[in-house]
Amino acid sequence: MTTMPDQRSDRPATAHEAVPATDLTTSGKPAPRVDVPGLADHLLGRWPDHRRRARERTGDPAFWKDESLSMAEHRERVLAQMRLLVDDEHKQVWSAFPERLGGGDTHGANLAGFEELVVADPSLQIKAGVQWGLFGAAILHLGTAEQQDRLLPGAMDLSVPGAFAMTETGHGSDVASIGTTATYDPATEEFVLHTPFRAAWKDYLGNAAVHATAATVFAQLITQGVNHGVHCFYVPIRDPQTMEFLPGVGGEDDGLKGGLRGVDNGRLYFDHVRVPRADLLARYGSVAPDGAYSSPIDSPGRRFFTMLGSLVQGRVSLDGAAIAASKLGLAIATRYGAERRQFTTVSPVEETVLLDYATHRRRLIPRIAEVYAAHFSHDRLLDLFDDVFSGAKDTPEQREDLETTAAALKATSTRFALDTLQECREACGGAGFLTENRITSLHADLDVYATFEGDNTVLLQLVAKRLVSDYGKHLAGATKTPAGVARFVVDQAADAALHRTGLRRFGQAIADVGDARRAAGHLRDPETQQELLADRVAEMVEQAALALRPAAKADPETAARLFDENQVALLEAARAHADLLRWSAFTEALEEIDDPGTRRVLTWVRDVYGLTLIERNMAWYLLNGRLSGQRARTVTTYVDRLLQRLRPYAVDLVDAWGYGQDHLRAAIATGAEAERQAEARAYYAQQRASGNAPVTEKALRRTATRLRP
Amino acid sequence: MTTMPDQRSDRPATAHEAVPATDLTTSGKPAPRVDVPGLADHLLGRWPDHRRRARERTGDPAFWKDESLSMAEHRERVLAQMRLLVDDEHKQVWSAFPERLGGGDTHGANLAGFEELVVADPSLQIKAGVQWGLFGAAILHLGTAEQQDRLLPGAMDLSVPGAFAMTETGHGSDVASIGTTATYDPATEEFVLHTPFRAAWKDYLGNAAVHATAATVFAQLITQGVNHGVHCFYVPIRDPQTMEFLPGVGGEDDGLKGGLRGVDNGRLYFDHVRVPRADLLARYGSVAPDGAYSSPIDSPGRRFFTMLGSLVQGRVSLDGAAIAASKLGLAIATRYGAERRQFTTVSPVEETVLLDYATHRRRLIPRIAEVYAAHFSHDRLLDLFDDVFSGAKDTPEQREDLETTAAALKATSTRFALDTLQECREACGGAGFLTENRITSLHADLDVYATFEGDNTVLLQLVAKRLVSDYGKHLAGATKTPAGVARFVVDQAADAALHRTGLRRFGQAIADVGDARRAAGHLRDPETQQELLADRVAEMVEQAALALRPAAKADPETAARLFDENQVALLEAARAHADLLRWSAFTEALEEIDDPGTRRVLTWVRDVYGLTLIERNMAWYLLNGRLSGQRARTVTTYVDRLLQRLRPYAVDLVDAWGYGQDHLRAAIATGAEAERQAEARAYYAQQRASGNAPVTEKALRRTATRLRP
Repeated sequence: MTTMPDQRSDRPATAHEAVPATDLTTSGKPAPRVDVPGLADHLLGRWPDHRRRARERTGDPAFWKDESLSMAEHRERVLAQMRLLVDDEHKQVWSAFPERLGGGDTHGANLAGFEELVVADPSLQIKAGVQWGLFGAAILHLGTAEQQDRLLPGAMDLSVPGAFAMTETGHGSDVASIGTTATYDPATEEFVLHTPFRAAWKDYLGNAAVHATAATVFAQLITQGVNHGVHCFYVPIRDPQTMEFLPGVGGEDDGLKGGLRGVDNGRLYFDHVRVPRADLLARYGSVAPDGAYSSPIDSPGRRFFTMLGSLVQGRVSLDGAAIAASKLGLAIATRYGAERRQFTTVSPVEETVLLDYATHRRRLIPRIAEVYAAHFSHDRLLDLFDDVFSGAKDTPEQREDLETTAAALKATSTRFALDTLQECREACGGAGFLTENRITSLHADLDVYATFEGDNTVLLQLVAKRLVSDYGKHLAGATKTPAGVARFVVDQAADAALHRTGLRRFGQAIADVGDARRAAGHLRDPETQQELLADRVAEMVEQAALALRPAAKADPETAARLFDENQVALLEAARAHADLLRWSAFTEALEEIDDPGTRRVLTWVRDVYGLTLIERNMAWYLLNGRLSGQRARTVTTYVDRLLQRLRPYAVDLVDAWGYGQDHLRAAIATGAEAERQAEARAYYAQQRASGNAPVTEKALRRTATRLRP
Repeated sequence: MTTMPDQRSDRPATAHEAVPATDLTTSGKPAPRVDVPGLADHLLGRWPDHRRRARERTGDPAFWKDESLSMAEHRERVLAQMRLLVDDEHKQVWSAFPERLGGGDTHGANLAGFEELVVADPSLQIKAGVQWGLFGAAILHLGTAEQQDRLLPGAMDLSVPGAFAMTETGHGSDVASIGTTATYDPATEEFVLHTPFRAAWKDYLGNAAVHATAATVFAQLITQGVNHGVHCFYVPIRDPQTMEFLPGVGGEDDGLKGGLRGVDNGRLYFDHVRVPRADLLARYGSVAPDGAYSSPIDSPGRRFFTMLGSLVQGRVSLDGAAIAASKLGLAIATRYGAERRQFTTVSPVEETVLLDYATHRRRLIPRIAEVYAAHFSHDRLLDLFDDVFSGAKDTPEQREDLETTAAALKATSTRFALDTLQECREACGGAGFLTENRITSLHADLDVYATFEGDNTVLLQLVAKRLVSDYGKHLAGATKTPAGVARFVVDQAADAALHRTGLRRFGQAIADVGDARRAAGHLRDPETQQELLADRVAEMVEQAALALRPAAKADPETAARLFDENQVALLEAARAHADLLRWSAFTEALEEIDDPGTRRVLTWVRDVYGLTLIERNMAWYLLNGRLSGQRARTVTTYVDRLLQRLRPYAVDLVDAWGYGQDHLRAAIATGAEAERQAEARAYYAQQRASGNAPVTEKALRRTATRLRP
């Protein structure tokens, strides 16, 4: 693709086949081999059957996105696909629901299967997510047992397609400030659900434009003159026969969107709609016939966050789906980049494979490394999720850890997916822009993942707040030395997402944090990488915490100013925390790779991830005295060497993600490019053999010059 | 949008109207005012009438993108719009064609008008660009006067819709290696145009799938057993009556793409199609009846690059279009960000406007600054283009400068546009994802700008090569001191794109380059900024040149390895060069702003641009000893202060780009959000006044706690 123009040749290429990757050697030693099928099995994770079944399904054409459909047709196709999901003998979409209703009470396994739907069609993932992960989950998590028994079956079997009516046009991230009211009327034992102004219309709701006949509606619960904050109500909205809105309900279609056109997003409003008292989903708050409010959670703030927190699975699954989409894009671009040749750089007759260009390796391989890190950290997030929702480790601390980790990972992986798909698109040139090559379609559909289920900026701020407040608690304790602070950060990462033992053995190395420069020569040592990454989080959190400390006692204006001055740094600290979580999960996962060749190659991949993180934030390391200039310079050199070393494994690494042609569904990932090249080579070879090949004017002139007296 | 959750309030907001921006003061002094209409006029540039007429047209609903259309309908609509462009009394699309054929022989003015079409519909810009800027321009620039007279009228009046058949499936950026052959047959005085294998199919050609009846086809010209390299042929491809392919011609539709669905891209192949000798576009090479080849340019290499270089206008106009699209996205996001409120940070009753959050300012304002810089550098690029193509300054050096500058600016502005549109989309939350708010649609359409008309990676490499080779020539001359090198870089920037006098006065300050640290305290001094930016380009180019020097005498493998080791750094140097061009153009342009308030505000904007460039590359400045740690830290602080200072001008700055509602066409940029907030405020005020407002449980509990004995 890229060469100095004066090295161009106008002679057509007659390239050899690439040397099989596994025969290559690096620095004279026999090169390790990646056990691709073994690694692929390993990457299926803790619930391999759920994931395998989900992959079978997403490889079935009945579930594929059909790019030729209009918005209206696409919406109907996705609804029909959802019915197929319910018909499935395994009823995998019911996994998370109670066994007594036909479900499996399996939470992590459910998500492991669910998030794979993105491979078939992101619209299917999201519309199914609305039905079972939001509408159904609201009944499950916010309803009483009686309400579950009464309302879940229709949600589960899709006889009641439902919308999840939380967001309003005027309030998205700030759910506490929504305007819809549900005022209790003791005379009839009903709530009066009402939209008082245009900004309080429910907006962006999947299923609401066309298919939903009911909705779980969030509104300010008002009874006896008191607003008890946001609660959720089960509300029929359309006549299932005529599909007309019921009296008092109105709405409109959100229309075309940048992607996800198979999801019928829409707006809803309510004009004094009467909701029976029994349809307030009453797990965390109920109203007696006389209007007296009661709740098992005293504090209105904690009650609100508990209700929202029970719906965390959306964020968890978006992390998984964003990683799956990144894998698809990278697998397509890497397979093409390993075949496509453009420009001659070494020999005048053989064009260079794109991945043999340094810039192309830089575009793709660090992203492959980051996906591996994201994959392993997502596995840990699923563990944490399963621990909480299975009840195995359901403590307030675990719930808070789950929410923080989900926020940190979702906010960073969804943005990473968009950047990665864009880079993959461009790395495939014009071919990358064709819908038949899939990448632009994935980008368009994934786009909204960055702002729904929690705007990424808001989520990162939640993470930063948690880091700062934990830091405050920790400082109040015994450890006030820099080493203690760094260990606290590492422990926190381990506690929050990893809750295993792998990381602990690094504790020793942390003792000399603050003098990380001493160890920087050993860039490949995980201890060095961890020190640098953890130390950065610790230092950034500490700086922010100290800067914000006066805010607690200041007037609102001063507090706001202090916050404003530190907001950018806080978000950066939250991102650094997510980086550390991923690096730690990757490092821990290496211990479970038994095959030595695979482990060796994945260790290089982990090093690429760790060192590109350090490279990306090099100014910070220099400014904060963590790396000397001389040592800093070696980071880039070493990364470049690693990328060259990993070059022969690029295709193995993406193949191990386990997506076949039925999942990739991209013309340029099929080997078609190599076939075309073989045909072209054969043509030129035959022409030369026949003696009919024209000589180039350039060659002729060279000869003429040489013969000139 | 973003606040610490514990500062949340569940009380609805009753915010005041924002203070009018122009009444604000900074640091006690009366704040300057931006003369928005005056600035808007000034920004129309050197050909204000062409641009104004183009804006009138893009504001006319007849030319707007209709998002509801199918691909087939969209293609027909765009073709119909092109016919309207021809019917236009000003015939602006003919501006660049010869006066004797009804054109205007005005080249810069033509592009100034043409690039604005992106505002109506990027598909219209590109399909029109294919017709008049590629198909027509190939006839104009590669044809003889006789061929122009014979072939241009049909291209101009659209009676012959045409394709520009250069790229093949197998070769995009490397045009010299295309496989299509045109072999001269003296017996019939015809060329035999042939596609020898699948990889040589022409691909991604606008107009080719449906509408084109002719094409300018690039092929290896072979006569008398010699391949004279790539030449262009005028070839009818479809019967204009039946629209069937002519005998020997075949092809297929590229189908759906990530965007630009109004452009009918397709593939073409030729099976021994006979082309009359007269239809080789013969300005740079012709074949006599007996098959003897002749050309006014002896060197086949120079001939090839001269032919390609004559088609540079595509790149120039994509730079302009990318900037226009960035303006649309930023104008929409800024207007929304200046109205939308989310979360309470200062007072519990007034929610905070998004742009009053530090993160939101960081997302949008530096991009506004970069667009201003890009705008002014594009104006200089148009000057340079006009100088060459009007013949006013048509020298080989000017042509080379034009090509290098166009490559540097196109490669960076198209990528910037995509990043900016993505950031704008996310900054608008869920609303940004709706097609009615335009941003996702612009992103999808602009996506391919990064790889067509020269893949950005390849273009940056061309720029780097020019920088390194000029550096080599320069070193061979007199000036070998660091100061000399830096002055050379600045002069080159000035020569290449600026060719005016403004920059020269900075020559003095350059004398002490290499000791830039000394001046770094004066971050707002343009001399400091220029030193830092220019010094970086100079140093990077010098390092790359020194590293590559041994390649000239090395074997191909060693040369390739050296190149590989430096490729990433070379691209970085090319990007830094583009940054410097933009900064210089912005700085020069400030001198032409007469209104003191406007000039003062724009100077802050320029400072934001210069300093965020330095901030972005801080690791380099630290590693190369250009900034001390202490001074480096002040960069971010100073940028933050500038962003706060510019906050009240954000809307003025985007309004001055001159795009009204008919150009923005985004529901969230209309003031609808502010209206909804006013309605909500009125509702809550009325409720409080009536005494019926419910008290919150939280407030009740606070009272209860206070009253507890």
